[in-house]
Amino acid sequence: MQDILKGLRIVEGSAFIAAPMCGMTLAQLGADVIRFDNIQGGVDYHRWPVNPDNHSFYWADLNKGKRSFAVDLKSERGRELVTALITVEGPEGGIFSTNLPAKGWLSYASLKSHREDLIQLAIIGDRHGGTALDYTVNAKVGFPNITGPDDDDRPVNHVLPAWDNIAAYMAALSILAAERHRRLTGEGQKVELSLTDCALATMGHLGFIGEMSINKEQRPRYGNHLYGALGRDFVSVDSKRMMIIAITPKQWSGLQRAGGFSAEVDTLETKLGLDFSAEGDRFIARTEICEIIERWTGSTRFEQIKTALDDNGCCWGPYQSVRELVENDIDVSEDNPIFSMVEQPHLGTYLVPGQPMSFSATERRPANPAPRLGQHTNEILADLLGLSDHEIGKLHDQGVVAG
Amino acid sequence: MQDILKGLRIVEGSAFIAAPMCGMTLAQLGADVIRFDNIQGGVDYHRWPVNPDNHSFYWADLNKGKRSFAVDLKSERGRELVTALITVEGPEGGIFSTNLPAKGWLSYASLKSHREDLIQLAIIGDRHGGTALDYTVNAKVGFPNITGPDDDDRPVNHVLPAWDNIAAYMAALSILAAERHRRLTGEGQKVELSLTDCALATMGHLGFIGEMSINKEQRPRYGNHLYGALGRDFVSVDSKRMMIIAITPKQWSGLQRAGGFSAEVDTLETKLGLDFSAEGDRFIARTEICEIIERWTGSTRFEQIKTALDDNGCCWGPYQSVRELVENDIDVSEDNPIFSMVEQPHLGTYLVPGQPMSFSATERRPANPAPRLGQHTNEILADLLGLSDHEIGKLHDQGVVAG
Repeated sequence: MQDILKGLRIVEGSAFIAAPMCGMTLAQLGADVIRFDNIQGGVDYHRWPVNPDNHSFYWADLNKGKRSFAVDLKSERGRELVTALITVEGPEGGIFSTNLPAKGWLSYASLKSHREDLIQLAIIGDRHGGTALDYTVNAKVGFPNITGPDDDDRPVNHVLPAWDNIAAYMAALSILAAERHRRLTGEGQKVELSLTDCALATMGHLGFIGEMSINKEQRPRYGNHLYGALGRDFVSVDSKRMMIIAITPKQWSGLQRAGGFSAEVDTLETKLGLDFSAEGDRFIARTEICEIIERWTGSTRFEQIKTALDDNGCCWGPYQSVRELVENDIDVSEDNPIFSMVEQPHLGTYLVPGQPMSFSATERRPANPAPRLGQHTNEILADLLGLSDHEIGKLHDQGVVAG
Repeated sequence: MQDILKGLRIVEGSAFIAAPMCGMTLAQLGADVIRFDNIQGGVDYHRWPVNPDNHSFYWADLNKGKRSFAVDLKSERGRELVTALITVEGPEGGIFSTNLPAKGWLSYASLKSHREDLIQLAIIGDRHGGTALDYTVNAKVGFPNITGPDDDDRPVNHVLPAWDNIAAYMAALSILAAERHRRLTGEGQKVELSLTDCALATMGHLGFIGEMSINKEQRPRYGNHLYGALGRDFVSVDSKRMMIIAITPKQWSGLQRAGGFSAEVDTLETKLGLDFSAEGDRFIARTEICEIIERWTGSTRFEQIKTALDDNGCCWGPYQSVRELVENDIDVSEDNPIFSMVEQPHLGTYLVPGQPMSFSATERRPANPAPRLGQHTNEILADLLGLSDHEIGKLHDQGVVAG
């Protein structure tokens, strides 16, 4: 928790990853983020992983630090309240972030009629109005075909929902860009971000489209090799696996010193007529170079390899399981300032991250937990919408709000 | 190209993906981003993919829309010029983004002595000061162990450098947050972002750390199954592969209608004593449910499956190769407003993306190309540092600058 975005308020109507993660990020940077949900919770309220009582780690971890407003979104009065919340006066408010269908009462046009300088960020599936999820987008852009062992041609889906994560931070960036514009000009706007376009743009930004368009070559599967330089996984004689990389000249000379195989490499370079100071030539000779590295790692104990790599400034890292990461890695403990032990509602106390960026102008405090569903309904109705205890009580009695 | 961040200037000393992509993103949103490089180019100047003349698509695509300043960074005078550029007066400047070692003359303390309200964003490998790249970070957090076919226990590296991409947008977000803070308070600051912490925080945000800490269960490999609900790849009788997903109740009922297998599913549900309206129960019965879906897809032509899925509002998408994506997909063409044909220096004209977010307050214009190395050296020296033609000529003669 850091206070760098203090004074910003975002109302969020969201589900799943991209939109909630956008809001959670802004909340952990000090914005007041209010997520509204139906009284029984949104479609993501029990998304796995869950605990034995079906309470969701996924939901809790993606909604840390927000305030929760529980309301019957099917009722006229409930919709009026959410509209009022989104469009309440004041320079800090008037920002609505959503991946719900922004139609009817939630459309930009409708909400804008209540507040002229509204900023509305809509995350959509694709530009045609279709549904798209991380996994369908990943299939579309072609990564499953070029991921996995090169002796197996089955497509490999990713486990990290990378596109959702990327979209989340693009969305947060868009909100700050639009808020900056509003601060400078007074003008609000609608910002639209499609998950599919996030992925398509990335394919261009990383050179895949240019390479295909100009070179006309389809990049094949390279197994665990890093593309275009030298890097792969290796196993020590005591069966520890590590990723070893040499992209820069410094990393390459360091690696040769670490393994003591410069002479062997020189012989290979001469034999193949290549120039290993060029990263591309190292990639061309990757099989042969990796055999040399493998003879070293495969006959050496992990601790000895580690020392040699570290002493020579190499770029490398061991493979871990998630269990090893969570149970043994000092970087996933309170030794790392981004983490703190937090009691999450319904789930218990465990290690929870704040945002990784550290702002020197603000102090880092422990992460805030996720809200219980509707935890802040009453304070929001009173403080932001100015409702009396009596009016709030009536809304509860009528089943319009809960919490 | 959109003008939403007009009036912002960032000086960048960078290489590889995260820092350049951060700057490229801001440049495509209208900021003036000046990348400085050594006269012969940085360590990433020939990073693959390259064309037959060793010009890099990777470099060009990650530096679109920036201005390039080529300077001898080893010379005293060159360092003075870069320092002056970073700390030149005016509200629009004084922002430095880097993943170079921010030591000595490039340290925050040193640069701050030239401009008190400097914002410096430093992307680092890990919090201990060590080197880390996307691929070592991915090995550390455990994804390779749980990615890939469940009948093969070899770790699978990802091809998309997801952590670099995520860090890039977190970095851009950090710059806007720090600039907002400076605008409101007049105060600059140092922001530090570690690639490793980006990944560790994500493991928490997505529920992996909570799940492991509380449930004490190591999630195994699930092959191409989506975790916790229903989703996998299926192949039609005419050998087209598609990802089909049912996370929400609506997607699940749509899928049953599309395939006409509600009765079969009901029988299975009763037999197993599960409640398929709960996404978790669908995941528990994934093998059996997928067999039912497979009998349908495996005996039906792709066009027919497509129609049925679309007509029933299902969430699905076909797998494509990168070639199919680039050569046949209408979303990767000028039909999609994020793309335009751009002549990239040394490489030729190809389809280049702008940023996926659309701001209604600004117009979208075609993407700007990458600069040639040093293309803007002279105009920067003249306009920003106020040097005369004579002084600029002398700097060229002395080999301090180029372009």
